[in-house]
Amino acid sequence: MGALDEGHFIAELENGMKLDSIELSSEEEPATTAIEDAVKVLLHGLGEDINREGLRKTPLRVAKAFREGTKGYRQKVKDIVQGALFPEAGLENTVGHAGGAGGLVVVRDIDLFSYCESCLLPFQVKCHVGYVPSGLRVVGLSKLSRVADVFAKRLQEPNRLANEVCSALHHGIMPAGVAVVLQCLHIHFPDLESAFLDPSHQAWVKALVCSGSGVFENEHADVWDDFLGLLKFRGINKDSTVMRHSSDQSWCPARSCSGAKTSTIVESINPGMITAVASIISSLGEDPLRKELIGTPGRFVKWLLNFQNTNMDMKLNPVHLNPDVEISFKKKQMQSELNLSFWSQCEHHLLPFHGVVHIGYFCTENLSTIRKSLLQSIVHFYGFKLQVQERLTRQIAETVSSLLGRDVMVVVEANHTCMISRGIEKCGSNTATIAALGQYSTDPVARATFLQSIPNTSISQL
Amino acid sequence: MGALDEGHFIAELENGMKLDSIELSSEEEPATTAIEDAVKVLLHGLGEDINREGLRKTPLRVAKAFREGTKGYRQKVKDIVQGALFPEAGLENTVGHAGGAGGLVVVRDIDLFSYCESCLLPFQVKCHVGYVPSGLRVVGLSKLSRVADVFAKRLQEPNRLANEVCSALHHGIMPAGVAVVLQCLHIHFPDLESAFLDPSHQAWVKALVCSGSGVFENEHADVWDDFLGLLKFRGINKDSTVMRHSSDQSWCPARSCSGAKTSTIVESINPGMITAVASIISSLGEDPLRKELIGTPGRFVKWLLNFQNTNMDMKLNPVHLNPDVEISFKKKQMQSELNLSFWSQCEHHLLPFHGVVHIGYFCTENLSTIRKSLLQSIVHFYGFKLQVQERLTRQIAETVSSLLGRDVMVVVEANHTCMISRGIEKCGSNTATIAALGQYSTDPVARATFLQSIPNTSISQL
Repeated sequence: MGALDEGHFIAELENGMKLDSIELSSEEEPATTAIEDAVKVLLHGLGEDINREGLRKTPLRVAKAFREGTKGYRQKVKDIVQGALFPEAGLENTVGHAGGAGGLVVVRDIDLFSYCESCLLPFQVKCHVGYVPSGLRVVGLSKLSRVADVFAKRLQEPNRLANEVCSALHHGIMPAGVAVVLQCLHIHFPDLESAFLDPSHQAWVKALVCSGSGVFENEHADVWDDFLGLLKFRGINKDSTVMRHSSDQSWCPARSCSGAKTSTIVESINPGMITAVASIISSLGEDPLRKELIGTPGRFVKWLLNFQNTNMDMKLNPVHLNPDVEISFKKKQMQSELNLSFWSQCEHHLLPFHGVVHIGYFCTENLSTIRKSLLQSIVHFYGFKLQVQERLTRQIAETVSSLLGRDVMVVVEANHTCMISRGIEKCGSNTATIAALGQYSTDPVARATFLQSIPNTSISQL
Repeated sequence: MGALDEGHFIAELENGMKLDSIELSSEEEPATTAIEDAVKVLLHGLGEDINREGLRKTPLRVAKAFREGTKGYRQKVKDIVQGALFPEAGLENTVGHAGGAGGLVVVRDIDLFSYCESCLLPFQVKCHVGYVPSGLRVVGLSKLSRVADVFAKRLQEPNRLANEVCSALHHGIMPAGVAVVLQCLHIHFPDLESAFLDPSHQAWVKALVCSGSGVFENEHADVWDDFLGLLKFRGINKDSTVMRHSSDQSWCPARSCSGAKTSTIVESINPGMITAVASIISSLGEDPLRKELIGTPGRFVKWLLNFQNTNMDMKLNPVHLNPDVEISFKKKQMQSELNLSFWSQCEHHLLPFHGVVHIGYFCTENLSTIRKSLLQSIVHFYGFKLQVQERLTRQIAETVSSLLGRDVMVVVEANHTCMISRGIEKCGSNTATIAALGQYSTDPVARATFLQSIPNTSISQL
C-alpha cells in the first residue's frame, strides 16, 4: 500500500499538462526543430513552395502534431497510477466475484487514436479495459483511460498496443488480472490509379484485438465471458474475438502492396525524402532501424507522393459534353451527383481529410453516365493535392461551372484527421463547405432543394 | 492581413498546453489552494472525515477540475485565431455564395462541456459553427472548435455561451457572418424525496440555442436555411430552432424549484458552506455577486446536501419479505430486476455519476412488486452518498444478499461526469462493474444468462 503515499506526483500529473510542456519547451525543442527541417525537405520533394502562405507554418504544425501524437514516449505509467490507488474492501475473500476489490471493473468505449508504425498515419481506437482488483485496492477509473493513452500516443500496431496497455496496467495496479479489447480503424487511402479505377474502394481497414493478464491470461477463462458479456452492448461478441492472439502484421494497407512494386517505387524516389522521414522517427524517440520501422519512411513518402504538386494533368475531355451542343429549346432541369468520394491531404498538417462531394447543376438530361465519371475525375483531380477544404470546394465549383454551365452548387462533407489527432481530439466532428454559383447563388429554393436531396447518412457511413 | 504576421503566438498556443501550465504552477497557485480550503469546508459540512483515504486528495482534485473546467477565463481568442488565418481566394466577389473566401464553412458535432452558472454542475454541449469568409481569409478549421471551447470553459448558460462564441469568432475572423447552434444537455438530479417517489424522473434537461452575426444577424436570412440545411443531417430542422432568441433563464433544473422552498432550505444550512462556494467562484475569476451567480452557492450546497453522510436511515422492512418464510419446497428460480436507476456522487471529484443497476437473484416467485420497490430503495440508499462505483456495487450486493438469499449478482452501468469534464474528456466512455455472490460466483452459465438478459440499450438511453 506504499503507493498510496506517493502523492507528490498527483499534483503535476492530475491533468497531464505540466510535464509535457516543460519537456516541449526545454530540452526537447531540438527534436521539434529537427522534424521541422525534415518536413521542409518533404515539401520540397513534393514540388511545393515552402514559403507559400498556407505552407509557411506547416513544418512547425507537423512537428507539433507528431510530438503531441507520440508524447507517450515521454510519459510513465507509474506516475499516473500511483496516487490514484484507493483502498476498497471486497465482498468476499475470493478473487474475481465481489464488488469493490474483487469484482470486475470495466471502462468501455474510450476513444483514442494512435500512429501506425508502418505508415505514420493516425488510426482510431475504441478501447475497452477491464480488471479484477485484488489486494483491497482499486484504481481511479479515469486512470485506465490515461494509461491506455500513454501507449496509444506512440508508433503502434494494434496487437502490441493491446499487449502494452494490458501489461502496464497489470504492473501498475497489481490486480488479479487485466483485459483489453481494442477496435481499431485505419484509413485506407487509394493510390492515384485505384482511386480512378475502383469506385467501390473501401475507406477503412478494421482490426479487433485482445490481450489479457492474470485471471485473463487463459483466453478460455470464464472471466473473459463476463467481460465480453458486458461488451456485447457495444457490438462485440465472443465469436468475433478469434483475432485475440492473431499476429497478423499486415493490417496497415500500405504494407499489403506487393513488396516488389513498393520497392521499385521507393527506389525511384528522392532519397533525401526517405532520410527526412527516418530523422522524424528518430526525433520522436524511436529507432528507425527497429524491425517494424525499416520500411516506414518509404511507405510514408510513397503515400505523400500521391499529393505531388505536378502529379496529375487533368485529362478532362470537353468533347464528351459540349455545352454549346446542349443549348437547345429543352428546358434545363436540376441534376445532381451525390456522394462522389474524395481523398485529400490537409496542407496545414500533412494529414488526410476525406469524405464526399455533392454537385448540383442545371442541364438537359442526357449523357449522365459520362457526366458522373467526369465529375468524379474532377473531384479526384483537385483532391490529390495539398489542399484546404474551402479551396477544394471552390476549385470543383469553378471547373464544373466551366464545363456544365454557370449554375452549379457544390457541397463537400469531410472528416479531417487533424481534427481528431491534434490536441483538440474532437472525434465526432466533421466539416461541410458550400459553393453556389449562378442560379444557386440567387435562389434559396434551389439551394434548399439541393441540400434536401443529400442523404442524411452521407458522412456517417465513411 | 496584418494578423498573418503575428505568428509568435502559434508556437505556444498550437497545443494549448504551455500557457495553462505556467499559470497553474505560478501565480495561480493561490487560487487552487483557496478552492481546496473551500472544499474541505464542504466535506466537513457533509459530515465526512476529510482524512479518510478516499477523500484525502479530493480537495486538490476538485480544485484542479474546477480550474481546468474554467480555464477559458485565462485564454484569449486573439491568441488562438491570429496566426491561423490563411489567404484563400473566393470564387466570385459576391459574399456568401462561393467556395474559399465567400462560401459557407461549417464544422458540425463538436463535443464540448461547460459549467452551469446556476448550479456549478457540468453540462454537455454539441456545438455546430458556421461562418462565411470575407476579405479573402479563412481560418484553420480546428480554431472554430478551440474558440468555442474558450467560452465553454467558463460558468455559462446556453444562450450566453452561443452569443459569446459567435461574437468572439466574428471579431476574431472578421468574416461576413458567424452562426452558432448549440444542443445542450444538463443533468437533472432528483432530490432525495423525488428519487423515491417519481420513478419516471427525466434525467436530462435539453436546450437548443442559436446565435448569429453579420449575414446571420437576421434570423430569417436565407443563409440560415443553408446552415440549418447542412445540420439537418444531425437531427436539427428549422422548425425546432424557435428558441433561437429565447431568453429562458430557467433551463437549470436547480432554478426551477420554487423560490420559497429553496430559500427555506438554504436558510437552514451551514452558512460556512455557502461562503465556501462563493469563495470557489471568486477563485475561478468570477464575481460571486454577478446577478446570475447570486443564488448559485445556495443551489450547489443544497444539491451537495443530498449526499450528506447521515442523510438517510435505510428503512428496509424485512417483514415484507422474510426469507425464512419463503424457504419452501418450491424450486427457486432465477429472477432479476433490470434498469433500476441510481444517482450518486463521485467522492474523488465531487461530480455526479449516474446510471442503472441490474440485480439478479434466485427466489420463489411471489411478492415481486414489493421486491422491486425494495431493491430500488436499496439502490437509492447507497447511491445518495459520496461514493465510488466499485463500493456501490459491493454494498448493493451485500444488502440484497442479506435480504433475498446468498445467490446475488449485481451489475452497475454508469456515466461518470468526471470522465467527461476532467482533462481526459472521454465523452463516449462509460463504466460497468460486477459483483457475483453464491451460485453466481461459481456458475459461469448463471452469470452469462443474467448478463444476456440485460438490454443493449440500458446505458445509451441515459
